[in-house]
Amino acid sequence: MTTEITAPASTGIVLGENQYGKAEVRLVKITRDTARHQIEDLNVTSQLHGDFTEAHLEGDNGKVVPTDTQKNTVYGLARDGVNSPEEFLLRLGAHFTGEFEWITGGRWAAQQYFWDRINDHDHAFSKNKNEVRTAVLEIAEDGSKSIVAGLEDLTVLKSTGSEFHGFPVDRYTTLKETSDRILATDVTARWRYTSEAIEAGIDFNAVYASVREQLLTLFANTHSLALQHTMFEMGKAALEANEQIAEIKFSLPNKHHFLVDLEVFGQDNPNEVFFAADRPYGLIEATVTREGGAAKHPIWSNIPAFI
Amino acid sequence: MTTEITAPASTGIVLGENQYGKAEVRLVKITRDTARHQIEDLNVTSQLHGDFTEAHLEGDNGKVVPTDTQKNTVYGLARDGVNSPEEFLLRLGAHFTGEFEWITGGRWAAQQYFWDRINDHDHAFSKNKNEVRTAVLEIAEDGSKSIVAGLEDLTVLKSTGSEFHGFPVDRYTTLKETSDRILATDVTARWRYTSEAIEAGIDFNAVYASVREQLLTLFANTHSLALQHTMFEMGKAALEANEQIAEIKFSLPNKHHFLVDLEVFGQDNPNEVFFAADRPYGLIEATVTREGGAAKHPIWSNIPAFI
Amino acid sequence: MTTEITAPASTGIVLGENQYGKAEVRLVKITRDTARHQIEDLNVTSQLHGDFTEAHLEGDNGKVVPTDTQKNTVYGLARDGVNSPEEFLLRLGAHFTGEFEWITGGRWAAQQYFWDRINDHDHAFSKNKNEVRTAVLEIAEDGSKSIVAGLEDLTVLKSTGSEFHGFPVDRYTTLKETSDRILATDVTARWRYTSEAIEAGIDFNAVYASVREQLLTLFANTHSLALQHTMFEMGKAALEANEQIAEIKFSLPNKHHFLVDLEVFGQDNPNEVFFAADRPYGLIEATVTREGGAAKHPIWSNIPAFI
Amino acid sequence: MTTEITAPASTGIVLGENQYGKAEVRLVKITRDTARHQIEDLNVTSQLHGDFTEAHLEGDNGKVVPTDTQKNTVYGLARDGVNSPEEFLLRLGAHFTGEFEWITGGRWAAQQYFWDRINDHDHAFSKNKNEVRTAVLEIAEDGSKSIVAGLEDLTVLKSTGSEFHGFPVDRYTTLKETSDRILATDVTARWRYTSEAIEAGIDFNAVYASVREQLLTLFANTHSLALQHTMFEMGKAALEANEQIAEIKFSLPNKHHFLVDLEVFGQDNPNEVFFAADRPYGLIEATVTREGGAAKHPIWSNIPAFI
Repeated sequence: MTTEITAPASTGIVLGENQYGKAEVRLVKITRDTARHQIEDLNVTSQLHGDFTEAHLEGDNGKVVPTDTQKNTVYGLARDGVNSPEEFLLRLGAHFTGEFEWITGGRWAAQQYFWDRINDHDHAFSKNKNEVRTAVLEIAEDGSKSIVAGLEDLTVLKSTGSEFHGFPVDRYTTLKETSDRILATDVTARWRYTSEAIEAGIDFNAVYASVREQLLTLFANTHSLALQHTMFEMGKAALEANEQIAEIKFSLPNKHHFLVDLEVFGQDNPNEVFFAADRPYGLIEATVTREGGAAKHPIWSNIPAFI
Repeated sequence: MTTEITAPASTGIVLGENQYGKAEVRLVKITRDTARHQIEDLNVTSQLHGDFTEAHLEGDNGKVVPTDTQKNTVYGLARDGVNSPEEFLLRLGAHFTGEFEWITGGRWAAQQYFWDRINDHDHAFSKNKNEVRTAVLEIAEDGSKSIVAGLEDLTVLKSTGSEFHGFPVDRYTTLKETSDRILATDVTARWRYTSEAIEAGIDFNAVYASVREQLLTLFANTHSLALQHTMFEMGKAALEANEQIAEIKFSLPNKHHFLVDLEVFGQDNPNEVFFAADRPYGLIEATVTREGGAAKHPIWSNIPAFI
Repeated sequence: MTTEITAPASTGIVLGENQYGKAEVRLVKITRDTARHQIEDLNVTSQLHGDFTEAHLEGDNGKVVPTDTQKNTVYGLARDGVNSPEEFLLRLGAHFTGEFEWITGGRWAAQQYFWDRINDHDHAFSKNKNEVRTAVLEIAEDGSKSIVAGLEDLTVLKSTGSEFHGFPVDRYTTLKETSDRILATDVTARWRYTSEAIEAGIDFNAVYASVREQLLTLFANTHSLALQHTMFEMGKAALEANEQIAEIKFSLPNKHHFLVDLEVFGQDNPNEVFFAADRPYGLIEATVTREGGAAKHPIWSNIPAFI
Repeated sequence: MTTEITAPASTGIVLGENQYGKAEVRLVKITRDTARHQIEDLNVTSQLHGDFTEAHLEGDNGKVVPTDTQKNTVYGLARDGVNSPEEFLLRLGAHFTGEFEWITGGRWAAQQYFWDRINDHDHAFSKNKNEVRTAVLEIAEDGSKSIVAGLEDLTVLKSTGSEFHGFPVDRYTTLKETSDRILATDVTARWRYTSEAIEAGIDFNAVYASVREQLLTLFANTHSLALQHTMFEMGKAALEANEQIAEIKFSLPNKHHFLVDLEVFGQDNPNEVFFAADRPYGLIEATVTREGGAAKHPIWSNIPAFI
């Protein structure tokens, strides 16, 4: 981010932080070196940082690498492969900061969609929509690189093994305590890699698989006393299994499944029939980090927020 | 559907076909007879048919079974299990046409969402979003039952084995012929069961699994000369494998993946780098049926259309 | 629609009704004859009918006018103006059935989005998202033309003047009668023009404005005893004011606004504080037609259904 | 936000920043003091800050004011009116930080939807979907209040008066310079009020109307040399007209409208026929602020990001 306040307009009103680029470049890369094709399916966003004051104040585009060019570059660089979203973003970042001297940094992001082979076919696939993988790279003005990886929209549910009680009560409390409820959420998790690990090199695909496995396993195996409780266990396991990760953040909707009152119809309902509600939903957000962890890293302020 | 034209308003303007009910009742049913829970997750719509002229013309609700009651009934009947969306809809239909003498029929529909076990856990699941199962039951005034089953949103792609050429050319033609392109679509398929099979009883879950397998296999294995060509093969296989099905209809978007011209950047692109476009898209729709099949069955006119 | 069953495949499985084309061609037409620009913003779908058996059964595309060509034609014909979605679709239909002898008919559809001028500016607009205008043209094999116009997504609400009582009660009834509730819906209405009016020529924009005005006025002014009751009044007024219309169909969700029980917090709630629910919702659908109106017109079976 | 790192888990893995609450509480408030009703339609999110370590690490919910209670409180407080989303959030924040001593702050947010009267009717409305109003309040541990107001999804377009040229060219550049293009965007703007203005009291509805008017007017009247250029003018005008605002941030997609090449069909296209593309799109983001403005305010890191 360009944090300096730039040349003032006559009125004392000035340009602050800014970035621009091309969003949601839909890239499908087929690797067909052999008859057994590979597919990589990404949604890539490129945003550049630098001193673009004159474009904003004067309409002088001399430093504005067109967003169309950024799109073209995504496709051009993809010709040599993707491998992992993080590695592809690193190549994009290196390209733009290397090619244009006034580009001091930027933010590159990707979503990756997964595909399964149909019956182990060589070139036929069905889309696996169970989750979306995400990655963000930010290159700061001093050249330092920060990477946040993640996953989105992984929907999980436990049909028992979840309690919620012991909460404070006031005038507006109508919730009943429960020792057996459905617990369901759409997992959005994002983890930041340590600068040491980035320097040393990371097997991004392997860490992704490990974190995903930890999140699912701890969600399943934790006897939950609150979604906060389950969330912390998920984060702790992800950090314990992957020393390359400095911290992990979660944004977890508590997707309410309300037990339907069947008694008025003369029926019992021993936790069998539920109404799955849309809105409102609980929203549980936290960072799980390592003792002595630093203050909030600047990359987080440029990622669709959660705390 | 109530096809009779009902009592005229004074102006010669009258009520025609009509139906009403509760849409999108979100039902989650947990079967917990043993420690190994089962989950069934449905989105149910109930719509009643009958003579509701007085409600429309006079605001007299004496025959209007409230949509709220229809919702409650969904939950009440679910207490005794779901099994398959079709069987559940049949129970709903029997209930409403049996309980209220003026309810002459109706339309009941469901979407079913799938869940996988997490690590084969007894009561922890992750949502399988790869497709949605659908079912529609219509009971006509004469008591006859029609059932259309289906699947939606099953996204498939072939990275080769697809050609398109030999098409007519006119002033507006700019498309180039190709002997190797990506073929991708979101499968929406709906098949109607024969009345004989409905009478004899159908293993709805087994037929669903069979049709799904046929569609995937034929999509993968057909060397495609057009999406129409692939579609017909898919439908033919589904019908050949399942004699309970009278006909199957498809609505298949041709999801274009355009080869990016990298030559201007000094690169080749041997079918490796593609732009996945959103809109417009091709839209290929057809019925595959049996020789001597009857005219268009009335249930199709009350299903979110395709031809 | 091609209703004939075509040449059998060897297995006795044959091609039934079918159509294909390009969907959601996003067209923005600026008319700039004077400094005061006009904007027309459409989403156009073109689907062709004819005997495409060989494409489906053999992969022979000799009669398959590419969907890409259909898209190009939309843009080419737009060069000479749009005027109304219906007139534009009529020009598209005439083109395809005239240009290719084997194209026996088709289905052409459009959504139109509205824009308002910003401060009466000559060439600056803000999008008016309050509703979407729709139109569908179908040309049958005999050359006859059917046109259905409509509007979608017009959200309206009355904060009083709506009752619901007098309904039947059974074991599953929990709804309370009310003489004062919020009534809210998203209006989807579609009306079919008479063949006489189509022949004589219709001022489509004027009828659209008239129907829209009638729907809003009758929604507002009807003291509602049921959404069915309001809906019929809306349809009756639209038909009375526009003799060109043969019938009008509605699909109206009853968007529930539940009065929140504040008594448990020691507060009253005289119809002031409501929870706006997402799902489930009532779904009220009907046709309002003219006495002696014919049986269901075939165009309805090829329009995203409602009854 | 609770920025302190809390009690370590045995593994050296600890809880960092966190918040929780109820999201998307759909509130419709009818004010019916007179026959001329008022409607206020909001989507409210409440999130609490404090030391919730024991809930996360031990599952002890003694300090966890249930999200259900937060929802109830939204409805309870709405009984006494809304007035503006900002004032309503301030009442929510005061309630929670006053009612529970361990609640040290929080984040409260709202979207507001607008309704127009139908024909100036007393109690019938149609939804105005042209934009959504937003507000976020954050109360920090020291009790200080920050407020960010905004609007979303205001779609605007200029059919001329927009140029783009003078940009740098490299190997990946294919974009042509233009002196006449369509400029279109969906405005998302968020502005932060100064702490002085918050203390002194703000007429939030009046400032909202003023900012909205400035944004529309400057979009329309600026002869644009880049979307960055237009955006800066919009922000400058908003700040100049409203001294209560410390800074304003924009996230503006450049919604591309591509001139269709009709020459291949033998037609000219003097900026009349355009293809409105979905993805990718340009994405232009910046802060417009006052000279000497402070560093990035912490509230921005807890708002769905843009720079």
